[in-house]
This record gives sequence, C-alpha cells and structure tokens, in this order.
Amino acid sequence: MVGGGRGSQIGYIHRSAAMRDRSFDLVAGAFDIDPARGAAFGAGLGLDPERCYRDHEALFAGEAARTDGVEAVSIATPNNTHYAIARAALEHGLHVVCEKPLCFTVAEAEELQRLAHGRGRVLGVAYGYSGYGTIEQARAMVAAGELGEVRLVNLQFAHGFHSAPVEEDNPAIRWRVDPRFAGPSYVLGDLATHPLYISEVICPDLKIGRLMCARQSFVASRAPLEDNAVTLMEYEGGAFGTVWTSAVNAGAIHSQKVRIVGSRASLEWWDERPNQLSFEVQGEPVRVLERGMPYLHPEALAEDHISVGHAEGLFESWTNIYGRFAAAMRATGRGDAATLAGLRYPDAAAGVAGVRWVENCVRSADAGGVWVDYR
Amino acid sequence: MVGGGRGSQIGYIHRSAAMRDRSFDLVAGAFDIDPARGAAFGAGLGLDPERCYRDHEALFAGEAARTDGVEAVSIATPNNTHYAIARAALEHGLHVVCEKPLCFTVAEAEELQRLAHGRGRVLGVAYGYSGYGTIEQARAMVAAGELGEVRLVNLQFAHGFHSAPVEEDNPAIRWRVDPRFAGPSYVLGDLATHPLYISEVICPDLKIGRLMCARQSFVASRAPLEDNAVTLMEYEGGAFGTVWTSAVNAGAIHSQKVRIVGSRASLEWWDERPNQLSFEVQGEPVRVLERGMPYLHPEALAEDHISVGHAEGLFESWTNIYGRFAAAMRATGRGDAATLAGLRYPDAAAGVAGVRWVENCVRSADAGGVWVDYR
Amino acid sequence: MVGGGRGSQIGYIHRSAAMRDRSFDLVAGAFDIDPARGAAFGAGLGLDPERCYRDHEALFAGEAARTDGVEAVSIATPNNTHYAIARAALEHGLHVVCEKPLCFTVAEAEELQRLAHGRGRVLGVAYGYSGYGTIEQARAMVAAGELGEVRLVNLQFAHGFHSAPVEEDNPAIRWRVDPRFAGPSYVLGDLATHPLYISEVICPDLKIGRLMCARQSFVASRAPLEDNAVTLMEYEGGAFGTVWTSAVNAGAIHSQKVRIVGSRASLEWWDERPNQLSFEVQGEPVRVLERGMPYLHPEALAEDHISVGHAEGLFESWTNIYGRFAAAMRATGRGDAATLAGLRYPDAAAGVAGVRWVENCVRSADAGGVWVDYR
Amino acid sequence: MVGGGRGSQIGYIHRSAAMRDRSFDLVAGAFDIDPARGAAFGAGLGLDPERCYRDHEALFAGEAARTDGVEAVSIATPNNTHYAIARAALEHGLHVVCEKPLCFTVAEAEELQRLAHGRGRVLGVAYGYSGYGTIEQARAMVAAGELGEVRLVNLQFAHGFHSAPVEEDNPAIRWRVDPRFAGPSYVLGDLATHPLYISEVICPDLKIGRLMCARQSFVASRAPLEDNAVTLMEYEGGAFGTVWTSAVNAGAIHSQKVRIVGSRASLEWWDERPNQLSFEVQGEPVRVLERGMPYLHPEALAEDHISVGHAEGLFESWTNIYGRFAAAMRATGRGDAATLAGLRYPDAAAGVAGVRWVENCVRSADAGGVWVDYR
Repeated sequence: MVGGGRGSQIGYIHRSAAMRDRSFDLVAGAFDIDPARGAAFGAGLGLDPERCYRDHEALFAGEAARTDGVEAVSIATPNNTHYAIARAALEHGLHVVCEKPLCFTVAEAEELQRLAHGRGRVLGVAYGYSGYGTIEQARAMVAAGELGEVRLVNLQFAHGFHSAPVEEDNPAIRWRVDPRFAGPSYVLGDLATHPLYISEVICPDLKIGRLMCARQSFVASRAPLEDNAVTLMEYEGGAFGTVWTSAVNAGAIHSQKVRIVGSRASLEWWDERPNQLSFEVQGEPVRVLERGMPYLHPEALAEDHISVGHAEGLFESWTNIYGRFAAAMRATGRGDAATLAGLRYPDAAAGVAGVRWVENCVRSADAGGVWVDYR
Repeated sequence: MVGGGRGSQIGYIHRSAAMRDRSFDLVAGAFDIDPARGAAFGAGLGLDPERCYRDHEALFAGEAARTDGVEAVSIATPNNTHYAIARAALEHGLHVVCEKPLCFTVAEAEELQRLAHGRGRVLGVAYGYSGYGTIEQARAMVAAGELGEVRLVNLQFAHGFHSAPVEEDNPAIRWRVDPRFAGPSYVLGDLATHPLYISEVICPDLKIGRLMCARQSFVASRAPLEDNAVTLMEYEGGAFGTVWTSAVNAGAIHSQKVRIVGSRASLEWWDERPNQLSFEVQGEPVRVLERGMPYLHPEALAEDHISVGHAEGLFESWTNIYGRFAAAMRATGRGDAATLAGLRYPDAAAGVAGVRWVENCVRSADAGGVWVDYR
Repeated sequence: MVGGGRGSQIGYIHRSAAMRDRSFDLVAGAFDIDPARGAAFGAGLGLDPERCYRDHEALFAGEAARTDGVEAVSIATPNNTHYAIARAALEHGLHVVCEKPLCFTVAEAEELQRLAHGRGRVLGVAYGYSGYGTIEQARAMVAAGELGEVRLVNLQFAHGFHSAPVEEDNPAIRWRVDPRFAGPSYVLGDLATHPLYISEVICPDLKIGRLMCARQSFVASRAPLEDNAVTLMEYEGGAFGTVWTSAVNAGAIHSQKVRIVGSRASLEWWDERPNQLSFEVQGEPVRVLERGMPYLHPEALAEDHISVGHAEGLFESWTNIYGRFAAAMRATGRGDAATLAGLRYPDAAAGVAGVRWVENCVRSADAGGVWVDYR
Repeated sequence: MVGGGRGSQIGYIHRSAAMRDRSFDLVAGAFDIDPARGAAFGAGLGLDPERCYRDHEALFAGEAARTDGVEAVSIATPNNTHYAIARAALEHGLHVVCEKPLCFTVAEAEELQRLAHGRGRVLGVAYGYSGYGTIEQARAMVAAGELGEVRLVNLQFAHGFHSAPVEEDNPAIRWRVDPRFAGPSYVLGDLATHPLYISEVICPDLKIGRLMCARQSFVASRAPLEDNAVTLMEYEGGAFGTVWTSAVNAGAIHSQKVRIVGSRASLEWWDERPNQLSFEVQGEPVRVLERGMPYLHPEALAEDHISVGHAEGLFESWTNIYGRFAAAMRATGRGDAATLAGLRYPDAAAGVAGVRWVENCVRSADAGGVWVDYR
C-alpha cells in the first residue's frame, strides 16, 4: 500500500476490504509522506519494519529485489500523485488498485490503461460504492428488460458538509479544493464519478453523445473549482441523463442516488439505504427489493456476506470489489480469459471513463455551459 | 363556473374548495360544451335551470342582466379557451379564477393582467398546491433567514402515468398533447409551473437571469410537445435552479418536490406528504416539521382546518387558495389596499410569470437547448 | 347539530363532511351551552335565527313542530352527554350521528341500539378515520384471502401531546381526564376505539374470546383514568391481538397504525400517510399500494374524490362516512333493505362494540391486568 | 473457534468481527461435528492442520498442551451445546465468547458466571446488534436525562420468514423449533433477547418487577415452542415495557425496533436502518440523528469505522463488540479494574439476564399468560 497511513479513513477501508475475506495480505507499505511516521504506522499494523518504505519508489524497488515481493499495490494518496505512482507500479510489473480519479487527463489515463494492458496487469479503480448486491440486481434487471427501454438516467451525489469554507481550518479538505492537488474539478471528480460509474455498470449500452455542464463555486474562494454542478447528457439512441453533484447541499448527508427510468419501470438506489432498491413498475405498486432475498437475480446474491435483514454497509461493498480485483489478478496470472470475461469490476476502462467525463464537463462549463460533443 | 362538468375532477375540486368555507356560492354555470348535458349537470348541483347556460357568452350576458348576477367566475375548461373566456369575463366586470395556464403567450397574459387591473378585478390562477400551510412555513423561514442565503432551487414534478401512449385510448388526455388545445408545451406548462410558482412564493426575491431547457418526446407521437424536460436557471445574484418535469417517470406518483438550499440549511417539500416539511440545517439532525405544530410561524398555522396529526390534503390547500381569492375580491370591492397588500395568492402576475417561463423554456429548447436571456 | 360551536374543531369537521357533497344541509342547531353564543355562531353559519336553539331539547321540540323540521341530528358534545341527547333525538324520530363514545356503558349503548332499531332510525357513530379508501382496500384484500388466514391484529393510537399535565392550563383537555365527563377511561375510549373499529371493518370475522388490559396514569393526577394502556386479545379461532394506546408517547404525532398479519401476507396502514397501504407478502418485496390506482379493489376506488397522487386527507374520510350515513338514512326511509345490506358504516352495533371493548378493558385493568372473558 | 464451519453464516461474522481490527487471531478450531469436514474448513482458512481439532475437548486439551495455545474461544454451535462447551472452556482457563443463549436455565447460567468470575476470565455473549454507535448514543442520551424519566420501553423483533413450516425442508431451521436443541423457547430466546439486551444497555436502571407473557404456535407443529409472543413488563418504579417477537410476521424483514419513551422525549432505533436514530422531543420536530455526526455524544463516535454518510452495517457492530471483548480480556489479564469498569459489553451478567428473562416468560406463558414476579 502507498499512502493511507495515520488519519486516513480511506486507507483503513482499503486495508479492511482487501484483507476481509483473505483476498490479499498486507506485507509492505509506504504509508506516509513522513517516512518515520509511515514506519511507525506500518509497525502498528504488524508489518516487517524492513518492508515499511520511505516512499513508493523505495517500495517498488525494494520489493522487486525480494523473491517474496508484493504482487499488487493499493494507492491511497492525494489525487495529484495517482498518475506517477500508478505508472511506476505498472512499470514494475505490479497489479494496481488506485483511488479515483485515476489521474487528471484522458491522455494520462489512456497511457496507464495501455501500460496495464501491455504488461498484462490489472489496473483497478476504487469505485467502492459499486460493489453492493443491489447494484448487481439493478444491472441484471436492466439487462433482462424489466425496465423496458432505458429513457432517463438521473444521478446525484450532493452532500452539504462543505456549505461553509470548512477547508480554512481543515487541511484534510483543503487539498480537495486546490487545483494543484485535486485536478481540474472538485465535486465533479470527487463525487459525481461515483454514481456515474454505477450508471455505467447498470446501463452498459448507454453512450454519451454530447453533454453540457454548469458549475458554480458558492464558496467563492474555491473558484475555479466548483462546489456544485449540474450536467445534462444526451445519450446516443435518445436517452437523457442528468447529474447533480454538490458539496453545499446544506443538511444532506450523502444523497447519492441513482434513478434509472425505463419505458416500463424505474429503479432507484440510494447509498444511505444500500440494502434496498425501489422498483417502480408503471401502473403497479412500488416494490422495495431487499438485499439477500431469493427473488433477486443470482448475481445480486452471489457476494452476500450474511442473510437478509442484517444490514450490510459500505465495507461489504468494498470487500466485494477487492474480491473481484483479486479474482481478476489471479485469472490474469493464469491467462484465464474466460474468467476475466465474466468478471465485472472498476477496471482501467472505468478509470479512463471517469477522467473523460470530468474533462468533458469542465470543457463545457468553462465555455459557459454549452453543449459539447463527447470525446 | 365555466366548464368543470360531468367527468371533470378539476371541476369538482374547484367547486368543493370554493364552497367549503362558504367563500363562494355557486349559482350559475356553463358546465359543458354540450348544453343539454351541462344543464343536467347544473340541475344535479341544485342550480336554478335558468342559470345553467349553453356557453360562457350566454352566461356572462345572462348574469349581467340580473340584479343578483354573479360576481366572479371560475374557468375550468381546456387550455386553449382560457384566454378568450377570461377576457370576456373581465370585460363583463367579473372577478376571475382561471385554471392554469392562464393562456399561451406572454402577450395575451399581460393583456389579461392589464384588463383585470383596469377594471379593478381580481384575476386568480389555480395553482392549487400552493395553499398548504407547509408552503407558508417555508416562505416564512426563508424570509426570516433561517436558511441563510438561498443558493439552489431544485424543483420537480415528474410522474409516470403517460409512459405509454395512453392518449390513444383516452380523450381526456389526448388534448393535453395536442398543441392546438394544450399550447406550446405539455409537461412544462401542465406540471412544472406548479412547483415553479411555489418556488416564487417561497423565494420571492429570486429573479431568473437566463435559462436553458432541453425537452424530449419519449412517446414520439407527442412531438413537438415534450413529455420530459429539464430546465436550468441562473438567477440574478448567483443562485442556481433546476427543474425536472416528466410524464414518463415510470412508476412515480407525483414526485412533485421543492428543495431550497441555503448557505446554512435546506428545506424540502413533497406534495405526496404535504403535512410535512424537511428542515435540514447543516451540521444538525434533519428535522421533520409537521403541519399544525405551535413551533411553526403564525402564517403557517393561520389557515389550518384541523389540529396536527389529522392529515390534511389537496382539498384543504385549494380551499385556502379560494378563501384568499374571496378575501381579495372583497378587499378589492371595498378598495382596501392594506388588506390586499397582505394577501398572498396566485394572482394575474403569477399567471403571467408561468406563461413567461414556459415561453422562455420553449424558446431555449427549440433552439437546441441553449442558454437564453430571460425576457 | 348539537354542540360543535365556537372553538370546536370536531364541529367543523362534522359540518364540512356532512355538507361537502350535499349529503346533508345544515338548517338548525343548538351549538353551545351558552345560548347567546350558540345563536351567534349559528348566525355566522347563515342559519335562520329561529332555528338556533338554546339546547337540544328546544331543538328537537322546535323542529318537531315544523313541517320542514330536521330529519337527522349530529351530536358533537362532551362524552357524558351523548347518551341523553342521542336518546332524546331517537325518541323524536330523528336519525342520529353521534360522536364516540356513544355512551359509557354497554347497557346504555344497547338501549340506544334497540331504540334506533325500534324507531327505524339510523344511529351512526363518528369513527371518522374509517372512511379512507385504503381501509376499504384492506377489507377487500382480507375478504379475498390475499393475506391467508389472519393471525395477528396489531393496533396502536399513541400520541404524545399529553406527556405533561397540559390539562391544568387547558379546559378543552381537562374534561377528557375527568371521569364525570369522560367516562370510565381516557385513552382506551378516546383513541383506541378508532383503530379497533377499523380492525372490525377489515376483519369482520374476528370475535374476541378474552382479553387482558394493563393501564397506567403516568401523569398521576389523571388516575383513575389512564394515559397509557396495553390490551391483549385472544380471538376465537386462535388469532391474537394487541392494542397500544397512549397520550404520553412523547414526540409522536398520532402513530395510529393498524397491522394485520396473515399466514401469507401482512397489511399495514398508518393514519398519518392515509393514502398508502403497505402490502407485505412473505417472500416478496414489500409493495406500497396507493389510493386511487386501478389495481385496487373497486370498493377502494368507489369514493375517491380526486385521482391518485393528489393527497386526500381526513376530511375526505369523514365526507365518505357522512355520505354513507346519508345513504343509509335514505335507504331506511324507503325501506330498502338490499341497499342497507350493502352499506358499511359505523352504525349502532359499532357504537355498542366500542363501549363494550372499553368496559372489558377497564374490568380487566381494575382487577390487576388479568384475563377476562369477553362479554 | 468451536463450530461455525461450512455453511454457518454466524461463524463467518464471528471470525470477520474478531479479526477485522486485529482484535484476535484465529489459530485453532473445531469447526464441524464432522471432523474431516471441519479440518478441511480450517485448512481453507489457512490454519495449521494440527490445530484443526475433531471436537472442542480435543481443542481445549491440545491447545493447553502448547506454549502458544489459544487464550480465548468463540462458540458458534447450536444452543443445546453452549453450556457444556463454555464450561469446559472456562475450566481450561480460556476466555469465552458464546453465542446466545448462553444456556437453557438460570442455574446453568449462574454457574458459568461464577466459574468465569472464579477463574478470572471474560465470558462474553454475542449480542451482536448492541455494538452500533447509535445504541451508545441512545444510552448516553438517557443517562444525560434528555428523555426525562423513562416511562415506556417498547421492543420488537418480529420477522416473517417462518410464516410457513419452512423447517420441514430446512435442517438449519429445524433445530430452532425443537426443544432438545433450542431449549425452552424459540422466538423469545432467539429474537427477543436481542432488543431486550439493547434496552438494558440504554436503560441500565430499569429492573423488572413482574411480567406476563402470552405465546402462540401459529405453525402448530412447533408447539410447545412459540413462533409469536407478547410480553408485558412492569418495571420497579413505574415504567412499563412491551416486547413483541415473532417469526410469523409475514412480509417483515427484521423489524427489530427499540422505542424508549420518556416524560420529555422518545428515542427509536431500527436495526434495518442502524445508522439513524429518531429523537422525538414532545412539542418539537422529530430529529433524525445520524451516526458519525459531531453533535452526538463522544461515546457514540468512539468506535466509528468511517465518517458519516458511508453506511455502516452489522459487521461493524460485531467488530465493535469483539473489540470490547478483546479489551476486556487484556484488562482482565493485567488486572486493570479501572479499564474494566469503563468497558460496556455483553458479559456473563448479560448472558444470565437473557436466560432469566426467557425463563420468566415461559413460566408466565405456561401458566396461561399470568403475571409472575420476576425472579
């Protein structure tokens, strides 16, 4: 692991998810920009002090020199470092799991994708909300035609925790609104790409034809980065999408919601109630589907950790994603194309797609909120 | 009353609301395009047969000839007739309550507004959802600064009942998707103007600077009228608004929602749970305000029909609006400007505003979903 | 009308419901214990001053002397007067609608029932929550076997508005906790009989075999009247029931809920969301049934006032009940037994049943919360 | 670990929770009544084959013979074996975590409690729902007087999954309704003790004075064990409690709910939405408290695994409980009474309390549902 040390909650969820079902062992790390603090942190996790490195370069070099060196690395550092660390890891022949966004430009993202492909390595991106069984259920229902033809995709991830300029007193938030560390966007990249990826999982056939994006900085000091944005998307074939993302939706917790409207029925998923899925057939009573129930599609049940009624949460979703990363790495290792074809996880293409979407949104927004062809 | 005869549910709610608290008496009508059927309908309501007229012209003329002639008329006919009937009624010196939309063009709407003003008559528009006490509470909270500065206005009225081309078998729906009867829009005018007016009540200071609108006809035979639309609005001063309106939101009932996001807190209202209001102060627990509770602002309690816990519904909201229409007519009659200044009801200006908004949306949508200056 | 004058919200809902769909006209009244105040109130309603009487005796005598005298009376006075007024009205040959409880003892209730039967008059009781279409839907579903065999009946009406001794400062509440005016119980009679009657409507075949009741006075000054009680009921045939009623359920609004559990499925209704009904088939997703939808049983749609999505409330429920009272009176008048057999409304038998249930509960509670055979 | 092998979901959650935050290492086990299957299961977990034992006796003896033998054992076997295994483990000087119920009689439970005390060992019971931060918040609020004086405790755990005689085809359920394996009760012990323990955590001062219990076997073949029961409890000091537990609440998922009603306010917790807590102050808007928010009491935040908005679930609750077990064992080991005094976890006394409550309920129910003094 690179990053994710003291005080990092994202580091904790990466480790917890990776090791939960023995998908991975944690044996080495460069946990902190301060090497001593990182070493102490690694020791606290029970790691061999020799394998707690001062930075990612030392980690990759040191492990490469061992016969029992690491096979995969998890990157949980600030956004601006993802590209360089991921590239270095891939060049060392490691599988990579990277926090999103994968990087800042489509050019960089495609370079990483090519590199992973060329080296025969897995490059996974931590879209950690996408591992819920309810998402698999939604995907299977759309694929089975239970919604009819998909017409509308309504996405939102709009919390209120940054309604005030909280970054002034909180360094952990400050880098997120600084383009040097956060890249070309704040909430578009940090929040909106989550439901966007989920919509790609549920509706794999939808391709964006053009989009327009309006973004605002209600806390003025955040400009040019936005703390609120609305994106409209015309998909090829006639479907229409909207994305609302915000960090100034005062009083809201996450309000990450995905609503898919078809010609026959709609589905709605809300990450604060991740064990439920609302299925709304026109002319019939709204049905509340529950995780773990036998009436679900088999794919939605395959990764259950416990039977229905017992609330699962985000850690189970991440665990599922990490389990798929591990399965993909094993299948890649043995050249098992059949298994790989059946695995669905946030891969390099998903990472590229997220960066591409942000890039198009920013291009539209910076031109005054005009429609731009998706490229 | 003109229109609202057999089979008209809108007619029933107009009558029920108007007479509920003895705001109005119903003494004459032209209820139906078929005079015999209209006369029979009026007889069933207990009206004097002489005062059941064959059409609105006969009604206005006949009543004008009586010493006890009507003072006000309620218009519940298809959209394309509103303008002519309202104009005739005002020219006969009658107060008017008109179904929305008031008419099809801003020019017509402003003409009616001028006519009402010139004749000293009330011209009310049936934005019947706006009479809930919870709306008054929202308005009072915004006015008192309890939300801080308003940043976002998120509106939706997006049902799913017309997901299929139901108009093919249902004449009562057919006219709504025919421009000859419905005017330049379907859901923009028929649905979206309701939450739009509510947002104007709650946030009277917001003025639209420019907007853009994308509209779609998912049931292709409805083109050029839309069955789904999204409008983005830049308000003067920096606030931002979105409106989603749809008749193809499969499985949804009304999903008419109004969310106002301020720098300190948000409010959310949903017309399917009209007795509640969600008040979400950033950093505090979400509060569910209940109609009728003493902690509300006095304006929110003034028109309660029964104490808290007993569900009120749309008929109470309409009753409140009709009560205000009556109060406005009485105050107008006695030249009581002070009372008029304190009355808030959907008046001619509100009617004009709705027509103007639709006109701007259509102009934007027809130009390809571009931003247009609001005019 | 007797009672229901100035400051009475129950009077308002009686009048509003009775006159809403022209079921009744209000032409005479004894509205107040203070005759002058009552006369003023009647005048405000537009009544002929001659028909505003000083008390119920004057009313019944005065109207009997007229050729156009009233045919029915609505009684909206404190509990301790119901018996005498209802008896007098029936003896004058009037139909009666009486606030619940009908009276204080089963003996009195049965006397009124016999009197109504003997005179061929309708004696209705104002169980005003029972008129919702969702209740008819529940009844029809149970009758159709959609729940399987009914096993459990869980009832509650448990608000929190009297958590503190609010009666000390509020005369309108004080009589409710005074046995001289309220009778042998407070919340058992005042609240619990509402969901109890609804359960009788939904499950007409269930007969109580024995019950036990524990009651408490958390505000000590209310003793011997209870402000909280739990009743357990063994029905003949093996079903089991529970009733929780309270005025000290702090923070709750009404929380009037009816849950019917069958061997196959359950139904749940909540009076604060009266347009919805939760239908929970074991092994299937929970379904939320909506008032007004075509998938409902015809009986559930018969009295709709407006189409689905538009919230109905308690006034519509009362209006429906009053409409049935009127229909029953008309059918009684013409000796139309077939129509009467098809009408379902809270009649004299329902009034007796409520008084009987309270009497059994009090008998059990006063014996220490022991099981008593139902009699 | 004893039990919890192939096909056991309870085994998985024990292991996952114990090892999640490195509270425990799993190094030995007797996972299955079939030794070969158990050994294979252990191997799959990566255990040393020598430490996969044929049964608990071999486990305790074998480990006792090692210098690195286990310090604690987790028991996840059917109910009827808990007593013997726990006793043997304590006699071998091991700390014990035992599935509930601890055993079948108070006499046995107290014997285990004495044994644990005498040997200076921790005896924990797996009330796994009690580890949520929202439960800590509720406890802290009651302790701080935010509810006023506690008046009512309403508990339920009433699912519908055994509405039909599903045990006929499912051995994993069959033992639960067989007194030889399940003990003297089914749902009282299996379900109701969960919210009961939570109520003891939240309201530690409440002591049951007497109770009455009515139980039913709606699936007749389950008699004498109940599949539905209602218990009423009079607490010393005047508070009153009700418990509804069921396996035939058709269509319900868990419906495990805890409502605490005080003289000033109520709290309600629902295990299907474990990140929320409803706080209902009489006369104020209902507040929805969210896990992880700074407005909570510090105890409610101490064990958060991730920040607010990210759904936690049952695995986090169990992890917290196991973390406390580990802390208690460490503190016991070093004789740290101060730390032990500050630790709150389901200990031997909680295990005894659960067994005692079931014993009293059964005694009441078997006597016909009479009130019995609590002993």
